[in-house]
Amino acid sequence: MTQPYTIADYLFDRVAEAGASEVFGVPGDYNLSFLDNIIASDKLRWVGNTNELNAGYAADGYARERGFAAMVTTFGVGELSAINATAGSFAEYAPVLHIVGAPATSLQNAKSRIHHSLGDGVFNHFIKMVEPVTVARAQITPENAASEIDRVIRMTLKKHRPGYLMLSPDVAKLPIYPPTTKLDDSQEDITSAAALSAFKQALTDFLPNKTTTLMADLMVHRLGLQEELKALISDTDVPYTTLSWGKSLLDEQGERWVGTYSGVASRPVAKDAVENCECLIKVGVNYTDTTTAGFSQNIDEKSVVDLHYERASIGGQNFAPIALKDSLQAVHEVMTSGINIIPMPLCEPMTPHEQIGADSEAIRQDDLWHIIAKGLTHNNLVFADQGTAYFGISDTRLPAGVTCYGQPMWGSIGYTLPASLGAGIASTHKRSVLLIGDGSALLTIQDIAVMLKEGINPFIILVNNDGYTVERAIHGENQPYNDIPHCDWQVMLQAFGGNEANSLTLRAQTAGELKSALQTAAATTDKLVMLEVITDKHDIPPLLADITKALQ
Amino acid sequence: MTQPYTIADYLFDRVAEAGASEVFGVPGDYNLSFLDNIIASDKLRWVGNTNELNAGYAADGYARERGFAAMVTTFGVGELSAINATAGSFAEYAPVLHIVGAPATSLQNAKSRIHHSLGDGVFNHFIKMVEPVTVARAQITPENAASEIDRVIRMTLKKHRPGYLMLSPDVAKLPIYPPTTKLDDSQEDITSAAALSAFKQALTDFLPNKTTTLMADLMVHRLGLQEELKALISDTDVPYTTLSWGKSLLDEQGERWVGTYSGVASRPVAKDAVENCECLIKVGVNYTDTTTAGFSQNIDEKSVVDLHYERASIGGQNFAPIALKDSLQAVHEVMTSGINIIPMPLCEPMTPHEQIGADSEAIRQDDLWHIIAKGLTHNNLVFADQGTAYFGISDTRLPAGVTCYGQPMWGSIGYTLPASLGAGIASTHKRSVLLIGDGSALLTIQDIAVMLKEGINPFIILVNNDGYTVERAIHGENQPYNDIPHCDWQVMLQAFGGNEANSLTLRAQTAGELKSALQTAAATTDKLVMLEVITDKHDIPPLLADITKALQ
Repeated sequence: MTQPYTIADYLFDRVAEAGASEVFGVPGDYNLSFLDNIIASDKLRWVGNTNELNAGYAADGYARERGFAAMVTTFGVGELSAINATAGSFAEYAPVLHIVGAPATSLQNAKSRIHHSLGDGVFNHFIKMVEPVTVARAQITPENAASEIDRVIRMTLKKHRPGYLMLSPDVAKLPIYPPTTKLDDSQEDITSAAALSAFKQALTDFLPNKTTTLMADLMVHRLGLQEELKALISDTDVPYTTLSWGKSLLDEQGERWVGTYSGVASRPVAKDAVENCECLIKVGVNYTDTTTAGFSQNIDEKSVVDLHYERASIGGQNFAPIALKDSLQAVHEVMTSGINIIPMPLCEPMTPHEQIGADSEAIRQDDLWHIIAKGLTHNNLVFADQGTAYFGISDTRLPAGVTCYGQPMWGSIGYTLPASLGAGIASTHKRSVLLIGDGSALLTIQDIAVMLKEGINPFIILVNNDGYTVERAIHGENQPYNDIPHCDWQVMLQAFGGNEANSLTLRAQTAGELKSALQTAAATTDKLVMLEVITDKHDIPPLLADITKALQ
Repeated sequence: MTQPYTIADYLFDRVAEAGASEVFGVPGDYNLSFLDNIIASDKLRWVGNTNELNAGYAADGYARERGFAAMVTTFGVGELSAINATAGSFAEYAPVLHIVGAPATSLQNAKSRIHHSLGDGVFNHFIKMVEPVTVARAQITPENAASEIDRVIRMTLKKHRPGYLMLSPDVAKLPIYPPTTKLDDSQEDITSAAALSAFKQALTDFLPNKTTTLMADLMVHRLGLQEELKALISDTDVPYTTLSWGKSLLDEQGERWVGTYSGVASRPVAKDAVENCECLIKVGVNYTDTTTAGFSQNIDEKSVVDLHYERASIGGQNFAPIALKDSLQAVHEVMTSGINIIPMPLCEPMTPHEQIGADSEAIRQDDLWHIIAKGLTHNNLVFADQGTAYFGISDTRLPAGVTCYGQPMWGSIGYTLPASLGAGIASTHKRSVLLIGDGSALLTIQDIAVMLKEGINPFIILVNNDGYTVERAIHGENQPYNDIPHCDWQVMLQAFGGNEANSLTLRAQTAGELKSALQTAAATTDKLVMLEVITDKHDIPPLLADITKALQ
């Protein structure tokens, strides 16, 4: 006898069609029965995390690589534990579908005082709580299943932000037919031909004979327009930069890369190229305080061509609706149409970092990240936690083929550990490199157990600087609230299932030891490698020093 | 020059007045400056947790012991990470005040796209999200500070449920005068004299010549009426029971204790005493599915005298408003007034547990919890996680002076680890005993580092049964989603700062080893002791087997 095709099958087939081959989460008694559908699926694989926040972070990392991710948690306790991850996915444009196993319909209808509820017989508290951090939500019923599953997943994909579905086990097992339509209905294009035509004409008038710089940021990545952007760079001669949120979008080894733009905390060459050019082409840029040293960008909006999500503007005049891919193509066409574009001249060359401390000396933060950057290689997936790691790596020149992720808008410390797990599962041909401090790592440390179980062999660089150093830089340099408990990082892998066959723990106190450890780690791709790097608890990278100064 | 008295000082003075001498939490850049006021306070001490969910759980455990707790997190990322703990405190009546460090007023007014926000310039998303799980909320301003701080803390105390305050650093440092009023305005009594008088008259008519049993539950504990309840028990001869949520409220060594009532999963003597008596006096009882084997209590409401939070009833007739302390006193007065109360005869004696497996054999769950219970002692603070531990310990007979806590309504696994830390800090003369499975422990394991840093020396009994055994009992016995990554529990303490001086790790596979380890642990009160107990991954305590059967 064939098992009937159920609503759970429909949902998970759509999840697979949306781009996921794994589903993250934690089991709970309201979702167990439809987790069976994942186990039985030949398109999906279950990846159990150690808690729901970690599952949400892992799904976010996966979504950044795949363009979609799904996670399953249980009602109340599970979903609320994950809600901070969902908020981060919302703020940072990671399309994660959160599927919540809900109590049986009969229990909800009877207003039962059941476990995982508040005891008031009300079952829509949590779907309401998640409203500000999701773009679509539904409680799946036998009547609405197909249409609501499709609507919520389509919105998640279209807006690149989280969606939420509540599913009761009794509904999950009801029969339904497989979908006949495709999930992807993206031929529906938001761009207005008239707006686009007006925009191109205005570009043709605006661009000629102006010194020009290009600045790109995260939305290019989230909308998957990296190749289109690279083509524009390659077919023109203008210098370019990104904000740290868009780190690694563009070739940082190229001669026209001027470093990362960070407002007043930028290097002079980036600051000059961005702020003193006559035409700044912004592609997918979202400002936030941590990427602009407290909104210190000094940019004359009259000089800006701004290509954004669903609109474009020139010197403050808006053209909408235009999708970013179309405005980017329009800029490409006009810039290569034979008009006179003047690349902004660079005020000084981008010199490579020269190591300040000796190899035999203790590692300094103003060397650390440059040495790490040099040790990175093609297909490294770097996750830099929102402490010294993020600001440190932002200021470096990354090798070609490295992808770099941070979370400067939401800034939830500990996020990167599970996120690097998720991204590593999403892209098995790449190696996750996690850059994280001891304070941040402690928040989410147990998902190391999942890294080991999954055998994804990331390289974890744990900066042991004795507490919340980024907070010390902001306030309370020596206050006890910036201390953390002492941990023994050398046995951490073992505690979570590491052994000689699957893992390697290293330690570096000097620059020389660091370089040697980086080589060992790069050569040890068949194990999870954790490198504990000791730095002084008050030492911070120069960019962070500049930014905290600007924020005060 | 004296530092001026500020709004932060006012807040923290009120926190101390409400009953806290410690504040839990995690620092963040929006709360750092007023954490200084905690450090400077001679009434409060800062206890930093490893993440915000753990801080929320620790505060919940502290609140159960102290009647009040406070935690501080940062805006967005911090508060949302803790929101599941707050929901649990709401569902289980733990008065925790959550203080959130918010962005500066000027940044909020400017609708800045700052970090830890959703980037939309809206700063009231999160105070709205927390609404269903708090009884009072406020954003503190220079104008409302004194009145809103007082209102929110008073509501938290009065309703025994969480409150929420948002405080920006710029507001925190403004001058204000110390309070002149007392926080406690509880002389305001809700009881109506007329209702109470009618209730007493009705009791005098109802109680005589009926076989009578008493059943107590959590609200007695939450309202601090243990002594009043004990006096009633001691001045009468009726048999008594609690639900598992009220475990340890009453003397379980007494001859009239009939075991824990759990609906169809009760032992015959408890079931008979509760369901077949002519008068059941319920004191502070809240039913939930996990404490009643799926609402299987077979109780004739016509026979019930129900003393609840702010009302009482006799055979379905309500008398309100009456505070529980007053209805309890009324029952005491009437029962001891000379009327004829007939103690419900017990259908069989409560026999002590007889060990089933031999000392040399592998430990069985049907022995495990009885052996552990026997090893407990006066002033042990037992936290039983919502897996085999909770259902296992519920069925045992606890020694006098043991307090037992679980979370059967909210049921968030992992809760008990930080909660036992918090309770241990609240009551330094007691020793926390944590009963937890490996799957649950993994969710919140890093707060072991805080236990070690704080030196509270709990006794952790970690049941290593290779995954989510309680879920296996419900569904998916051998499904991979009920597996967890392999961990090495023998080095876990070391990873989080344990050493020979501050900790001891034990392991038991047989009943004999278990007994010996319990003795060692009881004798080692100057260290954190972790005992790893190995049980079969499918073995569950009898009560849990009965309950899962009843739920299906």
